[in-house]
Amino acid sequence: MVYKDEQLDEEKVFKDPVHRYVHVKDRVIWDLIATPEFQRLRRIKQLGTTNLTFHGAEHSRFNHSLGVYEIVRRIIFNFRNEPHWNTKERLLCLCAALLHDLGHGPFSHSFEKVFKLDHEDFTQQIILGRTHVHTILEKVERGFSQKVADVIAKTYEDKLVVSLISSQIDADRMDYLQRDAYFTGVSYGHFDMERILRVMRPIDDQVVIKSSGMHAVEDYIMSRYQMYWQVYFHPVTRSAEVILSKILHRAKYLFEKKYRFKLEPTHFISFFNERPVLDEYLKLDEAIVFYYFQLWQEEDDPILRDLCERFMNRRLFKYVEFNPNQQMNQWMELYRLFQEAGIDPEYYLVVDSSSDLPYDFYRPGEEEERLPIHLLMPNNELRELSRQSDIVESISGKKRTDHKLYFPADIVSSMQDGKKQRILELLDNGGAKKHVN
Amino acid sequence: MVYKDEQLDEEKVFKDPVHRYVHVKDRVIWDLIATPEFQRLRRIKQLGTTNLTFHGAEHSRFNHSLGVYEIVRRIIFNFRNEPHWNTKERLLCLCAALLHDLGHGPFSHSFEKVFKLDHEDFTQQIILGRTHVHTILEKVERGFSQKVADVIAKTYEDKLVVSLISSQIDADRMDYLQRDAYFTGVSYGHFDMERILRVMRPIDDQVVIKSSGMHAVEDYIMSRYQMYWQVYFHPVTRSAEVILSKILHRAKYLFEKKYRFKLEPTHFISFFNERPVLDEYLKLDEAIVFYYFQLWQEEDDPILRDLCERFMNRRLFKYVEFNPNQQMNQWMELYRLFQEAGIDPEYYLVVDSSSDLPYDFYRPGEEEERLPIHLLMPNNELRELSRQSDIVESISGKKRTDHKLYFPADIVSSMQDGKKQRILELLDNGGAKKHVN
Amino acid sequence: MVYKDEQLDEEKVFKDPVHRYVHVKDRVIWDLIATPEFQRLRRIKQLGTTNLTFHGAEHSRFNHSLGVYEIVRRIIFNFRNEPHWNTKERLLCLCAALLHDLGHGPFSHSFEKVFKLDHEDFTQQIILGRTHVHTILEKVERGFSQKVADVIAKTYEDKLVVSLISSQIDADRMDYLQRDAYFTGVSYGHFDMERILRVMRPIDDQVVIKSSGMHAVEDYIMSRYQMYWQVYFHPVTRSAEVILSKILHRAKYLFEKKYRFKLEPTHFISFFNERPVLDEYLKLDEAIVFYYFQLWQEEDDPILRDLCERFMNRRLFKYVEFNPNQQMNQWMELYRLFQEAGIDPEYYLVVDSSSDLPYDFYRPGEEEERLPIHLLMPNNELRELSRQSDIVESISGKKRTDHKLYFPADIVSSMQDGKKQRILELLDNGGAKKHVN
Amino acid sequence: MVYKDEQLDEEKVFKDPVHRYVHVKDRVIWDLIATPEFQRLRRIKQLGTTNLTFHGAEHSRFNHSLGVYEIVRRIIFNFRNEPHWNTKERLLCLCAALLHDLGHGPFSHSFEKVFKLDHEDFTQQIILGRTHVHTILEKVERGFSQKVADVIAKTYEDKLVVSLISSQIDADRMDYLQRDAYFTGVSYGHFDMERILRVMRPIDDQVVIKSSGMHAVEDYIMSRYQMYWQVYFHPVTRSAEVILSKILHRAKYLFEKKYRFKLEPTHFISFFNERPVLDEYLKLDEAIVFYYFQLWQEEDDPILRDLCERFMNRRLFKYVEFNPNQQMNQWMELYRLFQEAGIDPEYYLVVDSSSDLPYDFYRPGEEEERLPIHLLMPNNELRELSRQSDIVESISGKKRTDHKLYFPADIVSSMQDGKKQRILELLDNGGAKKHVN
Repeated sequence: MVYKDEQLDEEKVFKDPVHRYVHVKDRVIWDLIATPEFQRLRRIKQLGTTNLTFHGAEHSRFNHSLGVYEIVRRIIFNFRNEPHWNTKERLLCLCAALLHDLGHGPFSHSFEKVFKLDHEDFTQQIILGRTHVHTILEKVERGFSQKVADVIAKTYEDKLVVSLISSQIDADRMDYLQRDAYFTGVSYGHFDMERILRVMRPIDDQVVIKSSGMHAVEDYIMSRYQMYWQVYFHPVTRSAEVILSKILHRAKYLFEKKYRFKLEPTHFISFFNERPVLDEYLKLDEAIVFYYFQLWQEEDDPILRDLCERFMNRRLFKYVEFNPNQQMNQWMELYRLFQEAGIDPEYYLVVDSSSDLPYDFYRPGEEEERLPIHLLMPNNELRELSRQSDIVESISGKKRTDHKLYFPADIVSSMQDGKKQRILELLDNGGAKKHVN
Repeated sequence: MVYKDEQLDEEKVFKDPVHRYVHVKDRVIWDLIATPEFQRLRRIKQLGTTNLTFHGAEHSRFNHSLGVYEIVRRIIFNFRNEPHWNTKERLLCLCAALLHDLGHGPFSHSFEKVFKLDHEDFTQQIILGRTHVHTILEKVERGFSQKVADVIAKTYEDKLVVSLISSQIDADRMDYLQRDAYFTGVSYGHFDMERILRVMRPIDDQVVIKSSGMHAVEDYIMSRYQMYWQVYFHPVTRSAEVILSKILHRAKYLFEKKYRFKLEPTHFISFFNERPVLDEYLKLDEAIVFYYFQLWQEEDDPILRDLCERFMNRRLFKYVEFNPNQQMNQWMELYRLFQEAGIDPEYYLVVDSSSDLPYDFYRPGEEEERLPIHLLMPNNELRELSRQSDIVESISGKKRTDHKLYFPADIVSSMQDGKKQRILELLDNGGAKKHVN
Repeated sequence: MVYKDEQLDEEKVFKDPVHRYVHVKDRVIWDLIATPEFQRLRRIKQLGTTNLTFHGAEHSRFNHSLGVYEIVRRIIFNFRNEPHWNTKERLLCLCAALLHDLGHGPFSHSFEKVFKLDHEDFTQQIILGRTHVHTILEKVERGFSQKVADVIAKTYEDKLVVSLISSQIDADRMDYLQRDAYFTGVSYGHFDMERILRVMRPIDDQVVIKSSGMHAVEDYIMSRYQMYWQVYFHPVTRSAEVILSKILHRAKYLFEKKYRFKLEPTHFISFFNERPVLDEYLKLDEAIVFYYFQLWQEEDDPILRDLCERFMNRRLFKYVEFNPNQQMNQWMELYRLFQEAGIDPEYYLVVDSSSDLPYDFYRPGEEEERLPIHLLMPNNELRELSRQSDIVESISGKKRTDHKLYFPADIVSSMQDGKKQRILELLDNGGAKKHVN
Repeated sequence: MVYKDEQLDEEKVFKDPVHRYVHVKDRVIWDLIATPEFQRLRRIKQLGTTNLTFHGAEHSRFNHSLGVYEIVRRIIFNFRNEPHWNTKERLLCLCAALLHDLGHGPFSHSFEKVFKLDHEDFTQQIILGRTHVHTILEKVERGFSQKVADVIAKTYEDKLVVSLISSQIDADRMDYLQRDAYFTGVSYGHFDMERILRVMRPIDDQVVIKSSGMHAVEDYIMSRYQMYWQVYFHPVTRSAEVILSKILHRAKYLFEKKYRFKLEPTHFISFFNERPVLDEYLKLDEAIVFYYFQLWQEEDDPILRDLCERFMNRRLFKYVEFNPNQQMNQWMELYRLFQEAGIDPEYYLVVDSSSDLPYDFYRPGEEEERLPIHLLMPNNELRELSRQSDIVESISGKKRTDHKLYFPADIVSSMQDGKKQRILELLDNGGAKKHVN
């Protein structure tokens, strides 16, 4: 039997808390899971620093990737008799689902921002480069790895295939909402996925939802909204991210200033140069990052040392609400007061902003054109979701942004009285509340 | 207000997937959680290598420690009006519950066996030594840290307090069974803890169970039995542990042989010498271990390199059932065949044994004297559980042991034909099945 | 000890699937549950005809009443140290919670509409009349039954007490949303009640929600919205209600016309006269209704017989969407066509309308003035929920109404061709879809 | 298309709390569900009087029957490629699963005992007699109803088909354990059905379990054990059954004595004569029974009146443990004392016994020969479960019996002092405890 059609003697299952079981029957999928590049995802947490807020959120990207694969597997099984569905795309969909997050590194969000990287580039490189994953994909057929890469990059010609992995209601989102809810233990994030899977229909180049399932989709969109604001953008998590980013900034800065590290940042040098090659990138998992941060607690540089110690021991920054449009004067005065106190405001007075657009229909010409969710009406018309759902209409296109100002409350407390007094006044201004979690 | 009675302005809660919320009101508890020694538990997985079998099992000992604290908090709340209960022991119980696993290191089981350590010694040292935890405990009252250490060591005079943390139905077990079931996703591990908490009664020096709750206790004991054999002793998990142990053995051996490591095992040296001091012990978390294992994949020593590569990429050993009493001849022949093939059987042909005693009543003079579970009968008599429960009686005192022989199937496959044939015959002997998961 | 303070020797518990356990310690509550008037609620389903759509929804009002009691018990326990809370109202709250639905009869919605009754009147009568419930309440203290009745009627002077049972976020709603979701098995209806209970605060004459719990309240409001449209107003359930109402109408009509029933409607006569006295009312549980409906399947009157046969065997009406403003002409033609075919349109061509207002703030002067939900902000201000929550703002005050036209598809199918054709055209008009579930 | 192969245009689903969804695609199944005989199961509770102990247990046999159908549907789907499986038996299996409990009446257990009926006879009669169900089955093919009847009667030639519905691990048991656990809310009754379904294999004339799934089966057997003793044999439920049986006995006795009922027992007469014909049997649902019991509260006969009043208002008998072998003298004295007090001991002093055999292997010649559960070992041998499982071995064949003596504590309390004293002594004898729930 040719490799692409090879089946395992017996179906393998992974026990999964979210989907009960993940089923694998294709040899190709089994082999991909066994690659070092995929196993590496076990050493990268799905939610980065969130476990410092929700202690259950210690699950890895390995965990999530299997889940996305399983959802796509179920969708395709449901599609097997649909006229618009091309069954030949089955294995391609499964591989793309499994591998879609392969290029993530540790704490991707911060690393990408500080070192100007893009994890999607690395996903492409791993799939197309000299890796075990690449070798397996090319065994399926010549050029198959490129197809997988294209699906993940959303450039693949069959947009129906793309939409399973990347749309406003795709397998990726359906998995992470449920999975992150399960591991954090929050009560948001539940929706009736089984029903959504049952009402998905492949029509031309998109997956649409039978209108009888509209309420399950509403529930999904509300779950998404709540998860963003309750979990993903939780201010304590963002505090840890702020510190993490500042550690990376500081280390880069010191490296550029030829600072003599006690522990040479060997694993980081190509990142500091903003040109990590694939091999170096793959070696940098969370364990490596933690190794450095732990040892850097004994560096001479007081800022690097302090920030690492904060990160390792969860001594986070506190925060106040901050309105960049109205509070610039306060911010400038705070900046100056921190400088006078010998506390570098670049590292210790940080504005962080989060924003989310819960759902949007297509607005041509806007920066990120989003494909809308379409309902399949009883008369076989398609209708854009927000035109049919009051709830979705009410939140459609409404971007919400939140700004916070982070600072080390402990250091402020130990400042001399006059300065401390003034700083606390400024931080307290406008009824903003200091959160001392 | 004195420190020991100090309450937080507002109760803090941790969102917990198992107990919904963990509640903290005591300043002392809040401060203990914030210590570096306790935060370190975030970097040590509760179940070591189990996540290689059950991918959800990525939760940390931090996670579990909060859970045990919460259960004890609820028990004590229920006990508040019980005549046999000394309310003055409240804070002591909470601290002991929270800190009972503080001395665990990464992959404790393997480390303890290879380096002849005992994590309980380290728990004692952390509580009594020069640590943040110690400082906080001594602020409660002089000598309080010793009390906490005594409770955990089971030497504290009030045995009722001890039994909350260490007995055949204690808060520790009730938490880990439920928690490990939740994160692995298995359907075992469920029992009606709320009911058990409701029927617990403090009588003299033990916690007994009202007989009306007997069935909930039966369910708990069956859960425990299933979790041991289905999760904790899962043969794939044990395969990873076998490899891990052999890495540690090899590194120690090489160190003793003055092998020149590319990456000096700085963090391990005191372990190799079997005398790690507290500071060194506290630094060794899982991240550090992974750092070494990752870099040792590039060592010159082929055994260390191969084993590390296997561990990092989950290329585990396969196994067959093995009966040490009947199969010694086979084992000796296999040993010789491996040697002849240049595969060191010390590292590549490993017998691993697991055994469990699901419940036992008191058998004086036996190695580990276990305190039985007592039921409080309607007539106020106490009766030992297995005398009342048919189910428990049927498994009481029945130790079950399982032996497996682990080996690298891939290496065997690549041996020359005659030898391979004979090895496979020997491994297959007696109807034993090779598991190629 | 006086009766009002009497405690049971041992706390009693009811195993409850929704709240795990319902706890009873007060003798008064225990005695109320044992009364025939309360036990009668076992014979009245919480959701009337919903079980014909969702087969799990077979739970009784007894089930729900215990749940409301338990929630109020937990709220009051949390309030025990709150300065604004009057602990003397404890027993009053518990009794009112337990008894708030005592006056419900079988299929209340239809009975009330057809016979112009109000179950709240009967709740008052049971509490204040010559009943076991009344006797027990008066043993608490003279006039206590009147207090309980006042709380349920919302006329009690302490509005804080009233708001626990009747407000836009009260114990009644929190119980039924969760309970009905549990028994139907739908995935809506989940919200974090434990969190809501934790952030409720009694302030002056209302219960407010600490703003940190806003998202849990949003989730609750969305749950409510989904439950209304997905479960309570499910068109198949309404079909059964339409038939039920028409049976009652027909029986009343026949009674007034001196029709000779084979089974005399003894239990119904006072209802037909629209003046049921309490004793008669209490006797009419669901079993009695089903008894009549079963026997009326053998009556001579073809309409009564047919409708009863439909109800008993779930041969329901089908439905199409209907817009009363635009489709009156169609309706009139249909009405005439039915008449011509000898099918009485009064019974076989029925418009049913459902509408819901998911949340509203206070609009003075409007028909049903609703008390808004207030958030307690960090600065101790109160702020109306929809001013703080985008989601709630977006659905606030938006009443949604749905109209459907019900008819017997089987009868239409058997009409002569020309008429049938025209009827089907009219029913199909405007893209409306016939639902043939 | 012929009727037997006819598929619905679109798959129908029932939302089910236990199996999430019940799926129907066959026209035959859809039509069977719509019959009056099947809809009647909505008016018969699955667990009879259990809801008087566990208030959630109000679910009907309709509910359970759909569940059994769904499990069999899933099993057959898994079997579709198995060589030993005859796909032609598919529809037969589904029909037998759906209809297996069709002959149950209200409170079957008591009715069968008192009136010497057998619900299985009625299942046969409904399937084979002049019913809607029969008509539909015969439309499938001539003689198909007989096949369905044979499967349910276990006489069908293909024993593999029989074993899906009736064996020690069949769809019936798997559904009711989970369903009854769900609705009562108890924490027993959970096992990993999805795993059991995955490891079931059809081999010759039985369904065997792959040995890798043994622990899931152990869990299932323990669940069954706990459900029997915690739920099905709960002494309070049995108290209600005792009263119910005595009502039926009394009514029959009065009927035979030509007592003049105020409400003639029309629906019961054929039962009193122990020869109910099918039509009469089908009319007797729970509503009818409740109707009589409610009205009989006003009969002149004091025993019938009192027992009905107890049953309707849940004024149950209390109980003490009773050992028939050792306590006959006490019982005889009690009997005499009751007689002297004018309390008829036939109705008011009742011994009730329950016994269960949790699992058994085949013991030829014993009264109820049970087919054992076989494991399919890796070497393709079959091995009887208790030979492989320690847990199952320990409870195998161990019949447990429980006897209780029921009596009206309220009547005893109101007896004259000397007699009361002696009765209480006798009831209290031997440390037995009076349960006053």
